[in-house]
Amino acid sequence: MAQTSYSVKTIEWQGDEVVMIDQRILPLDEAYIHHRTWQEVGDSIKTMVIRGAPAIGVAAAMGMALAAMQSSASSYEQLKADLDTAAKGLFETRPTAYNLGWALKQQEQIYGQPGDPDEIRRRLKERSQEILDEDIAMCVAMGEHAAPLFPKGARILTHCNAGALATAGYGTALGVIRSVFRRDPGIMVYADETRPFLQGARLTAWELQQEGIPCRLITDNMSGYFFKKGEIDAVVVGSDRIAANGDVANKIGTYTVSVLAKVHGVPFYVAAPTSTVDLGIPDGDHIPIEERDPAEVTHFREVQCAPAGIGVCNPAFDVTPHENVTAIITEAGVHREPYSESLAAAKKGK
Amino acid sequence: MAQTSYSVKTIEWQGDEVVMIDQRILPLDEAYIHHRTWQEVGDSIKTMVIRGAPAIGVAAAMGMALAAMQSSASSYEQLKADLDTAAKGLFETRPTAYNLGWALKQQEQIYGQPGDPDEIRRRLKERSQEILDEDIAMCVAMGEHAAPLFPKGARILTHCNAGALATAGYGTALGVIRSVFRRDPGIMVYADETRPFLQGARLTAWELQQEGIPCRLITDNMSGYFFKKGEIDAVVVGSDRIAANGDVANKIGTYTVSVLAKVHGVPFYVAAPTSTVDLGIPDGDHIPIEERDPAEVTHFREVQCAPAGIGVCNPAFDVTPHENVTAIITEAGVHREPYSESLAAAKKGK
Repeated sequence: MAQTSYSVKTIEWQGDEVVMIDQRILPLDEAYIHHRTWQEVGDSIKTMVIRGAPAIGVAAAMGMALAAMQSSASSYEQLKADLDTAAKGLFETRPTAYNLGWALKQQEQIYGQPGDPDEIRRRLKERSQEILDEDIAMCVAMGEHAAPLFPKGARILTHCNAGALATAGYGTALGVIRSVFRRDPGIMVYADETRPFLQGARLTAWELQQEGIPCRLITDNMSGYFFKKGEIDAVVVGSDRIAANGDVANKIGTYTVSVLAKVHGVPFYVAAPTSTVDLGIPDGDHIPIEERDPAEVTHFREVQCAPAGIGVCNPAFDVTPHENVTAIITEAGVHREPYSESLAAAKKGK
Repeated sequence: MAQTSYSVKTIEWQGDEVVMIDQRILPLDEAYIHHRTWQEVGDSIKTMVIRGAPAIGVAAAMGMALAAMQSSASSYEQLKADLDTAAKGLFETRPTAYNLGWALKQQEQIYGQPGDPDEIRRRLKERSQEILDEDIAMCVAMGEHAAPLFPKGARILTHCNAGALATAGYGTALGVIRSVFRRDPGIMVYADETRPFLQGARLTAWELQQEGIPCRLITDNMSGYFFKKGEIDAVVVGSDRIAANGDVANKIGTYTVSVLAKVHGVPFYVAAPTSTVDLGIPDGDHIPIEERDPAEVTHFREVQCAPAGIGVCNPAFDVTPHENVTAIITEAGVHREPYSESLAAAKKGK
């Protein structure tokens, strides 16, 4: 694995506990939450202690291992019933991230077949660690595939946080940026602050600062200004789910960035592992979009910034149509139109 | 003047004091700041106690009247020297709003010709009140001109606050919305929160709530999602300066909204008095763009939301090219391409 100065662990096993850095309070506070039950893991996914589709996938896999440890079942049938309950509960925490369901299916391949309960417990934990390790390796591979796409001294816009914190480590979109930076220290990153949850201001800016990658933090409504001035050479974002035709669900605001990129002739790249690609849905219209708590919009962290009782919309994601996507980068390579063919081939190759 | 339930006064004379509502703390607190000197008025413009190009114009005109009262000059020459100093100081408070310079020129027409100092003092104060009264009348006229442009049950997006608080009262873009609502209570308004200063969340949402106009507050990065779903029928925004060719400077983020509107075939309207139109500059490239304090981006009020020491950009405005503007509405009527002709005619008609 490539070296990185970035040392904070998004999620890891410590003995039989799943430990996550609390991403809600970064970068001002650095605190770690210990989880002994799948319900605690589910709560942390729901409340965004951990976020980012790949990281949610790892958390769900670990949550299933915790569920197996929690279960006092001595029979396979009882253990399977307990695990099915946990899988259902974890699946319902966040509807858009495809890696969540993917990771649960990975674990189901272990406990779906009758076997010795203790052996299943052992293998679920082992597999969750494998998923974590594979995720980092995939991020590094994405970075290597993508780096040659960027011009020298590129000024790169990213939206939300698709960094080490959104994954098991290294990052998807931010992993790409790390790889580009290693080859060319002359790059500069525009980081959208990404309201309402401020993943860009809090997490991406922090990760970039840790790495010494030059960064300019902007509010989400500023990128158009810099596109128009010709000061953005490329966009790279992560994804929460990619449909078979290449439509990309990602953090709210991504669609607007893709429109701006297209209008200004700037390439728009998406970096995500193949576990984010959902061949089961034909296009973005079928991707469920999570609506979150209005308080995220009316408040800025704990500070109220809108009149009480005002109507609010808070869709957490939007869908960028494949026509706006220059290329999708997975661990398998760089995929282009027609995505229905290139993505299917990438998934098959796995 | 049309009736409105909206009763808060943005700015007014109380005796020989200029009183402004403090827009930095609305809507959670309602406090009024009293000004006895032009320097205090300048500080309030700079720190955005008062903002919005038309309101800044009124404030500058009143500031000049205060400067005349402050001056102990008994000769015309000394008074003029004091007023020139004040005009220079007020002019430098905010570079983008054209109404600021326009209002100072209005006052210069009074003190530019030799005359009795006390008579000049009286007329400067009188003229500042006229500018305030005219501003409200112009906003109401804009609303009447614009209202027929909107379809029944229109879902209207606005950005920033171009409301009663951005003007002497009633509002430009929000005045249009008030006029539309009076004819058609079935409309609905999407209000961009408008980072970094949150004029949309704090001021527009509050004004709409006071009027009982249905409103959905969204973060700036969400409008693309609603454009794509076909849930926005029209956009209306204000302006801080309009070039001779129809290029429109307005709050940062407006350009992005105009791109989204164009791509989705949605009309994009600008409402502003002719005092915002600067025939002296040929196009938007010549409009100075104010860069504000990075702390506005890294903090919300007292709450820090980004790592210390991070690089930040904070352009306060952007320019929407005239090609993206469906029509510009002034007190003189509805103006369309070619704006170089229609705007010149509107200014001439004044």
